[in-house]
Amino acid sequence: MVEISSPTETERCIKSLIAVFQKYAGKDGYNYTLSKMEFLSFMNTELPAFTKNQKDPGVLDRMMKKLDTNSDGQLDFSEFPNLIGGLAMACHDSFLKAAPSQKQT
Amino acid sequence: MVEISSPTETERCIKSLIAVFQKYAGKDGYNYTLSKMEFLSFMNTELPAFTKNQKDPGVLDRMMKKLDTNSDGQLDFSEFPNLIGGLAMACHDSFLKAAPSQKQT
Repeated sequence: MVEISSPTETERCIKSLIAVFQKYAGKDGYNYTLSKMEFLSFMNTELPAFTKNQKDPGVLDRMMKKLDTNSDGQLDFSEFPNLIGGLAMACHDSFLKAAPSQKQT
Repeated sequence: MVEISSPTETERCIKSLIAVFQKYAGKDGYNYTLSKMEFLSFMNTELPAFTKNQKDPGVLDRMMKKLDTNSDGQLDFSEFPNLIGGLAMACHDSFLKAAPSQKQT
């Protein structure tokens, strides 16, 4: 038997990222993948702090192509963590530059 | 100028995953990587729903080795998203099996 306790913040985040993927993947066509339109909708709605900062209008097109490793024009869930990871790395690098010795508690 | 508004759930999760990495990476030694001890501490504390279900005591050792793509005995932040992604994929697959046509709203 596994003891049921309230989820940790990390567990909650993983569930939340799955839910947001499923929400956008379910908007049109095949429910388990993000089409180009669904990807754009996700990026503009869920990551406005990133998308509003982009001066290059082609950046989302190039991101979709880079993330779509099997080049089927859709992002499946196995391709999605690379997006979250890439954005997290970009943020993490800027945090390191801003506060190199700061510890989060 | 970029308009400042409250972060979305996805932005909040990305920040939270960065913060949790930094929290555990700062426990010993070099602050920007997870040592084996820090990785085990992270997994046991932040992902108990996963670790308590593992019957194989070697699973965390093998995960660390697999994630440590440059084999330096440390997980840096570029190696960390693969962990979150791998766990999310495992959860996502089980959600698909449990409710194949369910949409999250």
